Order: sequence, then structure tokens, then C-alpha cells
Amino acid sequence: MSLVVTGTVGIDSVYTPTGHAEKVLGGSCTYFSAAASFYTPVKLVAAVGGDFAPSYREVFKTFPNIDISGLESRPASKTFAWGGKYHANMDSRETLFTELGVLTEAPPPVPAAHTSSEYVFLANSHPGVQLSFLRQFPKRKLAVADTMDLWINIAKDDLKALLNEVDGLVLNYDEAELFTGKQNPVTAAKQIIAESKLTFVVVKKGEHGCLFVHKDGVAMLPAYPAEQVIDPTGAGDTFAGGMMGYIAANHAHHAVKDRVHFEVIQKALAHGTVVASFNIESFTLSRLLTLKKAELDARYAEFAKMVRV
Amino acid sequence: MSLVVTGTVGIDSVYTPTGHAEKVLGGSCTYFSAAASFYTPVKLVAAVGGDFAPSYREVFKTFPNIDISGLESRPASKTFAWGGKYHANMDSRETLFTELGVLTEAPPPVPAAHTSSEYVFLANSHPGVQLSFLRQFPKRKLAVADTMDLWINIAKDDLKALLNEVDGLVLNYDEAELFTGKQNPVTAAKQIIAESKLTFVVVKKGEHGCLFVHKDGVAMLPAYPAEQVIDPTGAGDTFAGGMMGYIAANHAHHAVKDRVHFEVIQKALAHGTVVASFNIESFTLSRLLTLKKAELDARYAEFAKMVRV
Repeated sequence: MSLVVTGTVGIDSVYTPTGHAEKVLGGSCTYFSAAASFYTPVKLVAAVGGDFAPSYREVFKTFPNIDISGLESRPASKTFAWGGKYHANMDSRETLFTELGVLTEAPPPVPAAHTSSEYVFLANSHPGVQLSFLRQFPKRKLAVADTMDLWINIAKDDLKALLNEVDGLVLNYDEAELFTGKQNPVTAAKQIIAESKLTFVVVKKGEHGCLFVHKDGVAMLPAYPAEQVIDPTGAGDTFAGGMMGYIAANHAHHAVKDRVHFEVIQKALAHGTVVASFNIESFTLSRLLTLKKAELDARYAEFAKMVRV
Repeated sequence: MSLVVTGTVGIDSVYTPTGHAEKVLGGSCTYFSAAASFYTPVKLVAAVGGDFAPSYREVFKTFPNIDISGLESRPASKTFAWGGKYHANMDSRETLFTELGVLTEAPPPVPAAHTSSEYVFLANSHPGVQLSFLRQFPKRKLAVADTMDLWINIAKDDLKALLNEVDGLVLNYDEAELFTGKQNPVTAAKQIIAESKLTFVVVKKGEHGCLFVHKDGVAMLPAYPAEQVIDPTGAGDTFAGGMMGYIAANHAHHAVKDRVHFEVIQKALAHGTVVASFNIESFTLSRLLTLKKAELDARYAEFAKMVRV
């Protein structure tokens, strides 16, 4: 049941065709934790600088299930900051600036109380850093990593080493192609599994949903048919948060040997899809902050009906 | 139960990154009929020229459920011919040539025996021609039209007139955007319904599946995760054929007043998806010619499992 996430807590400035939000709470750990917290308690491990205002910290406390005792504060450092601008159709964006801050320093320590975590999500960062985090959770039952094009380009060997120790990988459609040179996402995902010790790969396709390739089968899900997208930032992280939160809350009853049931992850992806669909309805965590479990359940039921055959 | 399709029977020359097929049987009616015939008897209405070899006609006879008594032969005319080339990732193509032939002449007559058809599919052609066909089926219970960007650009008023008399419209993602100016396919489909007498719109997204917007709800389906695409020609028409074939075979037991149940069409879209997934495994109708109903049923069951949540 114990879920931990490592990655970034940052300060985002986001510009979309219809509005903007400056210096708001962001980062992969942030979005992941908020989403996962609807399913299970979640602990985050990240570092922030002296510019990380108390008001940002307060946001986490609004979510009763998020444990931020692993959020290290470094008064002399700067928090990771990112600025991005989305294009007209919201399916592509450009980075306006990236201030790495604490990310150029040593990774934060994992609190001793967290090292017994059984479900581990390594949000996007250098695969070498992800691997060093991973090894601090010896009781893990399921570890899943995210990655990005940068690491495929400049740290592919480190990424391959990581994929020999985690169970699952989550990445974007174009990243799967970049990683393998295969234009077909099913073929690409199968190749990534064949060349590693991974049990599964989830290929995220944004508004087109996701593809799930597991040693035990293949599944696909469309995205929720959102009509109004205010800010796509965090869609991938909230998707992963919903997925891992659901797995951590339900895996124990569905385990097959050492492997999480295909069907449990398949259902988890639908939960991730639905949580992410709420997140994109507002800037930063605004929508998740007001989201009620009953709303989440209602949309899940609606979504399940929409994809029923 | 009586399904009729109007549109083209043509001669295709197709070039893909891995091969080519010259002067093979093609056309919207052809692909539609072949797919629909796995579910229900289907009658086609189209015209061909003197260059339409007996061997093309023989192909239809291989499918026991296709009635080609409405395939008019015009010895002094030329058959519609199309040449196309697919780009590397198979998701875009360019037209190499189009020889309209019989399409520039009067549309073929609808045989008297066909006019009692209850399920009508108007494959892509000028919306004025589609409308004149439609009115020859006074007993229709469900009529669905396909269209293309050309008619949206040069015959929008005719298309709008058509959409006040048919029940459903099938079109591509970019056509839905072109038609409405809306970049969101759900919003676009809803607008098309609001501005017409349509009950539903199906937005085809190729490898990303389809979106179904109906007065009674919204549904989505991913595509079947094909790893080897030999020739995408006819994917949209076989999708529509599987959909209409399933509806024609099953509607009678599921009608609500004058409207086909949302759930019947939703299930029909899955059947269309699966038939289309076989069609793209070969040039022209080669794969459908050897397809067994048991293979179709097995892949349908596999697909249903893949999208289960």
C-alpha cells in the first residue's frame, strides 16, 4: 500500500492561448502526488530552494494523503523553475526557460521511514539519479519510471541500465520512436521490453490516449473527450499518479507471483486517464484541489461507459 | 436487414513504402460491401466502364453476401481510376492521379428491387448526388453518409442540405475541423449535429481510433494495434462497412422509437474497427477475400479485451 514518488517540485510559469499562470506550484512529484492521493497515501521525495514560499507548501497540506516529510528545503539554493508556452491546439509546447536550481545538486536523501515503500514511481530525471533512488527501496513490489527525449539522446546507456531494474516504463509516443527507431508504437514498446527486464511499457499519446504493452498482453485506451483544456501541464504526471495510486491501493489482492496482473494495470490506466482529465481543466493544481472523490467516481463510470464495447 | 451502399467501384494503383499494387479493384462501395458482407447481405449501386475487366467482377462473387445487380456497366465509358502514394508512416498520402470516368456522367439508377432497403450508406461523392440517391430509399430506417474535404470546400450548402435528411455522418478528424473551424473534435461533432438534423457523427482518427458523438452520448474507441500495415486504402470504407453491417444485422432488436440505440452503434464501431484492421494487412481486398468469420470473431474478442476497463 505504501507509494513513494521521486522527482521534481518546481515553480511553473505557463502561457496558453487563453491565459497564463505565473510562478505557480508545479513539478512532476507535485502533480503525481496530488493525483495518487485520491487513491492511496503517497510520500514524495524532492528538494526545493529558499525561494519556495510557505504558500506552496500549504498547497500540499490541502491533500490529506500527501506526506511531504521527504521534501527537503535548501535555503541557499533555488527551486527548479520552468516556463512554457502552449500552441493553439494545446498538443505541442515550447520551453521558454528552465532554471535547474537544486537539480544540479545532490539528490535529496530518502527519509529512513520511506525506504520500506513497496510501490515506487521515479518521475522524470536523469536515469542515473533514478537508479540511485530506486536502490534505496529494497522492499519494492513494483517500480515504474518516466523518462524524456533528453535522456534518450544523452544518457541512453544509463536509461538502459535503469530499465533492467524497474518493472515498468512510461513515455511519450515520440520518445518511444526516438528510443527504438520504430515508427509503430506497439513494435517500439515490444522492442523496449525485449531489450530490458521490463514487464510493461505505457506509451502516452496525449489527446489520443495511451497504449499499454505488457508481457501478458496489449491494451489501449482513448483519452477522456475533454472539450475545454485550460492547461495540459501535468497531464502525464497526473495520469501516472492515478495509475500508480490505483495499483498501490489494489495490487495486494491481485498479485500473480511477482508480477502485477495485466488487468489491474489496465484498469489503473483508466483511473489515470480520468484523474488527468480533471487536471487539465485548470492551471496548476486548482482543479484537483477542489475535486471530490464522488466527482472522480462519476467520471470514471462515465468513461467506462464511453469505451465499453 | 436490407443494406444498400452507393458510391464508387474503381480501379486503384497504390504505392506504399514497402510495395505497390497496380490496377487493382478498389472504390468505396467495394471496400464497404466486402466488410459489410461478413455481417449481412449488402447491395451495391455504382457504375463502371468498358475497361472494367470480368476478373474484377469475379472478385465480388467470392463474397456470397454481395449483390452486384446494381453495378451498371457502361461499355463506352471509363471506370473511375485512382492512384495514390503513402508516406513513410502510412498516416498520410498523396493522390498521383484521378480519372473520374463514369463519375462525370449521370449517377447509376437504383434497381427497383433495391428501393425498399432499410439501411442506407452513402459513400463519399458529391452531396447533391448523395441526396438524390437517398430519396430513392423511402423505407429507410437509418441512413449514414461519408464525405470529404473537397465537398466541404466547394459544396458546403449541398452537404448541409444532405445532413438535414440523413441520420449519421462519418468523416475524418481534419474534415470535422475544416467543416466547423473547431479544433476540438467533440466540439466540432456537437456543432455539426446542432446545425443539422443528424442524430450522430463519427469522427475517424485513423491509427488513433474514432470518436462517436450521438444525441444520447459520447463514445470513443482506439484503433486495433496493428503492427504491420501493408496498405491503408479502404480503411475508412471497411470501417463503415463493418459498422453498417452490424447495425443492419442487429438494429431490429434494439430500436428505440425511430432512433438506433446508442449502444448498438457503439458496438458496431468496434466491429468496424476490427474488420478494417484486417483490410489494411494487404493490398486491395486480398485479406478480406481469405478472411474467415471465426478469425473476425476471435479478433473482436481480443479487441474487446484490449479496451476493457
